Amino acid sequence: MHAYRTHNCGALRAHDAGSSVRLSGWIHRKRDHGGVLFIDLRDHFGLTQIVVGPGSPAFETLDRARLESVVTITGDAVAREGGAVNANLATGDIEVRAQTVTIQSAATELPLPVAGDAEYPEDIRLKYRFLDLRRERLHANMMLRSNVIASLRRRMIDQGFTEFQTPILTASSPEGARDYLVPSRVHPGKFYALPQAPQMFKQLLMVAGFDRYFQIAPCFRDEDARADRSPGEFYQLDFEMSFVTQDDVFAAIEPVLAGVFEENAGFGGRTPWAVTQGAFPRIPYAESMLKYGNDKPDLRNPLVIQDVTEHFRGSGFGLFAKMVEAGNVVRAIPSPGTAEKSRKFFDDMNDWARAEGYAGLGYVTRKGGEFGGPIAKNHGEAGIQAVYDQLGLGPDDGCFFAAGKEPQAAKLAGLARTRVGQELGLIEQNVFKFCWIVDFPMFEYDEDAKKIDFSHNPFSMPQGELEALETQDPLTIKAYQYDIVCNGVELSSGAIRNHRPEIMYKAFEIAGYSAADVDANFSGMINAFKFGAPPHGGSAPGVDRMVMLIADEPNIREVVVFPMNQKAEDLMMNAPAPATMKQLRELHIRTVD
Amino acid sequence: MHAYRTHNCGALRAHDAGSSVRLSGWIHRKRDHGGVLFIDLRDHFGLTQIVVGPGSPAFETLDRARLESVVTITGDAVAREGGAVNANLATGDIEVRAQTVTIQSAATELPLPVAGDAEYPEDIRLKYRFLDLRRERLHANMMLRSNVIASLRRRMIDQGFTEFQTPILTASSPEGARDYLVPSRVHPGKFYALPQAPQMFKQLLMVAGFDRYFQIAPCFRDEDARADRSPGEFYQLDFEMSFVTQDDVFAAIEPVLAGVFEENAGFGGRTPWAVTQGAFPRIPYAESMLKYGNDKPDLRNPLVIQDVTEHFRGSGFGLFAKMVEAGNVVRAIPSPGTAEKSRKFFDDMNDWARAEGYAGLGYVTRKGGEFGGPIAKNHGEAGIQAVYDQLGLGPDDGCFFAAGKEPQAAKLAGLARTRVGQELGLIEQNVFKFCWIVDFPMFEYDEDAKKIDFSHNPFSMPQGELEALETQDPLTIKAYQYDIVCNGVELSSGAIRNHRPEIMYKAFEIAGYSAADVDANFSGMINAFKFGAPPHGGSAPGVDRMVMLIADEPNIREVVVFPMNQKAEDLMMNAPAPATMKQLRELHIRTVD
Repeated sequence: MHAYRTHNCGALRAHDAGSSVRLSGWIHRKRDHGGVLFIDLRDHFGLTQIVVGPGSPAFETLDRARLESVVTITGDAVAREGGAVNANLATGDIEVRAQTVTIQSAATELPLPVAGDAEYPEDIRLKYRFLDLRRERLHANMMLRSNVIASLRRRMIDQGFTEFQTPILTASSPEGARDYLVPSRVHPGKFYALPQAPQMFKQLLMVAGFDRYFQIAPCFRDEDARADRSPGEFYQLDFEMSFVTQDDVFAAIEPVLAGVFEENAGFGGRTPWAVTQGAFPRIPYAESMLKYGNDKPDLRNPLVIQDVTEHFRGSGFGLFAKMVEAGNVVRAIPSPGTAEKSRKFFDDMNDWARAEGYAGLGYVTRKGGEFGGPIAKNHGEAGIQAVYDQLGLGPDDGCFFAAGKEPQAAKLAGLARTRVGQELGLIEQNVFKFCWIVDFPMFEYDEDAKKIDFSHNPFSMPQGELEALETQDPLTIKAYQYDIVCNGVELSSGAIRNHRPEIMYKAFEIAGYSAADVDANFSGMINAFKFGAPPHGGSAPGVDRMVMLIADEPNIREVVVFPMNQKAEDLMMNAPAPATMKQLRELHIRTVD
Repeated sequence: MHAYRTHNCGALRAHDAGSSVRLSGWIHRKRDHGGVLFIDLRDHFGLTQIVVGPGSPAFETLDRARLESVVTITGDAVAREGGAVNANLATGDIEVRAQTVTIQSAATELPLPVAGDAEYPEDIRLKYRFLDLRRERLHANMMLRSNVIASLRRRMIDQGFTEFQTPILTASSPEGARDYLVPSRVHPGKFYALPQAPQMFKQLLMVAGFDRYFQIAPCFRDEDARADRSPGEFYQLDFEMSFVTQDDVFAAIEPVLAGVFEENAGFGGRTPWAVTQGAFPRIPYAESMLKYGNDKPDLRNPLVIQDVTEHFRGSGFGLFAKMVEAGNVVRAIPSPGTAEKSRKFFDDMNDWARAEGYAGLGYVTRKGGEFGGPIAKNHGEAGIQAVYDQLGLGPDDGCFFAAGKEPQAAKLAGLARTRVGQELGLIEQNVFKFCWIVDFPMFEYDEDAKKIDFSHNPFSMPQGELEALETQDPLTIKAYQYDIVCNGVELSSGAIRNHRPEIMYKAFEIAGYSAADVDANFSGMINAFKFGAPPHGGSAPGVDRMVMLIADEPNIREVVVFPMNQKAEDLMMNAPAPATMKQLRELHIRTVD
């Protein structure tokens, strides 16, 4: 018989009754029923009920053992009788009558219990992460994470991608977030940087001719933590492809993401959530800003914002009329089926908008076809009816209005759309809705600097390429740049890259940078492009965010196996920590108070 | 038609003749045959011959384009006639008659050529790594590396292992090699360390209940470079298993390694190399030191060293007799089939041993049954025949002798075994021979410190556990510790871990450390073990070394996509580099001249 187990704790079935078995695991629960000890023995695979009679030599040992001790039980698998069968447990048809027991590791008193799902303070959970990870929810989340990553890899390889490991000790990037630096022992006064993303490397892999690259890539940004962002490190499904158009990139990655989400849609035994079928909807940036008030729309929310500015030009509702005259816009957010909502519902929305720092949120109420509220009264019924006709609203639907400068009005409308959708219970549940945001503007007017600058990534290919840069108003030029969004969460930004030095110099010239500026800051990439570069593009969906979405966990720390706390500390390993003088001397640095 | 390609450059076959096609790739070679231009167009997938007649508008463009420019060719696939068929090329049955050409990216003059396999200086190769990687050998090596890693992952998952990503920003380890440190911005004066290996984390994953963990794990050691070791980072197939004996660990990993080696045994189109079949031979450490003179034996070498000390006790060969009397040993290295070797062959071996810093290497020659050399003469024919009988040597075999203190004699015998094997052409070619080295001693006597200390890893489980520690002479206790060796290369060290605090304290006590010492240095692990730890063990075979073995490359830089040079510099990305004052201020450090 094996020293530790003939079966794991999730393996025994009715047909094993009568076998001699050996199991090892943790004492999950212990109950003494009139001198008979019932133990739930737990391992990675499941739970098995162990029964020890009072006469057994194992009784005393197990009776004394604390919860979470690791034991090896040898005994007989026995069928449970009628009512004793536990249908909720895979092993519920049998129990093991213990004959001998070996304590492999005695547990001392626990700082947090493993059985049950009581909440515990985060510092205790992180300090004793190895205990917290034994709990059902975290254990399942980590297995999900591993499965998501393994599935991403399998699907990318099936799509003809090859995984490469790019360097982790590398150079500081000239822009972006803050780098982590690593002092060099061999080169005094010099530092490596941990990569914020392997962007340069993946593009160089395309220049090197590797056609389709991917990597489950560790990325490092020395930024403060947020709920959806770990301090320190995070993982991306980084990928890049050569000789592709934007359509090719979409066609390659859509089935990978949809496939991984579908594969794990029934996580935790839930009824599988629906996933966007076929090609993901493509929403131009400008359309997204109008309809959803942001560039990461949650398509589970059926509400669509519309521009109603022209309705209020010269309106009897003087506030809007004056604003429109001054070049502002008015955006309408439908609020369907609110006939029975009290005035307070509408006023609360207005108060919320003010609390968010906006001037307010106008509204029209309607019940049985009758409009209410100050806007309807002043603007007039016919005029409001025209707005309702445009929006397709009916006799019992309300409507909110966000007015102001376009960016602010769009943003408020977007926030109101989310809030209205939530308040009215309109958000579709148990579904993953993907979309692409496309056609990002290449340039924008920087009001502070009073000049044209890049709106997003200067290294994306402008649509129309050199000709567009030479002939169009820069503010009308779009980029081959795209985001993947799922349920209102931006999973990644990507682009068809600008692989032509002459187009890059021209784009930077428009944004006010000389060729010398470009050479000084981006020579690595531009020089490589001078030796024959293929057209290429890619993206890098966030792995942690995917797992959070699938697990329906709002905090990234629930889907990372050994996370740091909000203050970028590892409470279990005690990092960061002071270095020794010898270490600092070897690294040619000194700490400064 | 797709903007860039209907086919890749390795796709077209005879049956495609007559199709209109579009290909994109790099101009690999260009030949002008009487005004007709022949171009080998290359991409990741292969080469296709492009033909451009002088009348074609594409002619002038392609004639002017430099090698390595990226072009898109549109034209007709045409069958090649008889002698023009190129059987060495997958696409050799067809060629593409170019009609139009688009230059996607014009190449400037190249610092190193891509076609051909001329040697180039390392600094040029590393600075222009994206060009070097286009060359056939490196391209193939990188694809091999990716395939090895993907195959390792697939096989580990098939064996029930789960991959987890352990932290890269973590704590300094109290022993081992030199850490890379990362200054904390948030915690002035404190530092993270990059992991030398995820040892603590994988053991904590077992304590957390995850049964079978693996990771293709980046590891970081701030050590100087060697041919088989990159400066900076390297990768291990890190794995750990719970509730296992040493046999279980071997049974889990043997098919993974053998499978990966077999899968890639025919790398580069060679006749597939043989791989150890079935269970790997297990060689106790002491036996390996005796038979092979080291603990990483190359089993492709058929020579086996034997101890012949007792033959020389009181021998007429006074040098050996005196040495034996003084407690030294004599080891014999067979040198079969050397009847026709000149005296110089034997004397050269002796000179080589002296050059290596040893006193010398004795020898006996033999031809047609007649012994020769000073040892035979002084020791006498009968005595030497007895040695030959023990070694199983015949009438035309020679023999070398290494004498001295046991460790030195063993080491010299091991080096001589390798050299004799090479000189005589005895090393089996085109084969991967795996073995395990087992039963490492737990403790050794430290001659300098005049005390007993750990010989290898203090955290391995001693064979016999607590009882052995309490009752045996420590120097006779073996550990459940094992190395995987392939063709004389140590792929990894592994162990069944000591998961019992009481055994750990006792082992450290034997090595002269108090419980307080242990708690001060290893509290993280020991505390975790106090909350219920499973028996567990694992190993971490080096991925880079596996790829080097399979690719038959002696230098690790040939199997890493973007390596640093020997001075730990990335010449392409220019790392390490000075930091800005702002960065240093934020990190609360200052550089010291």
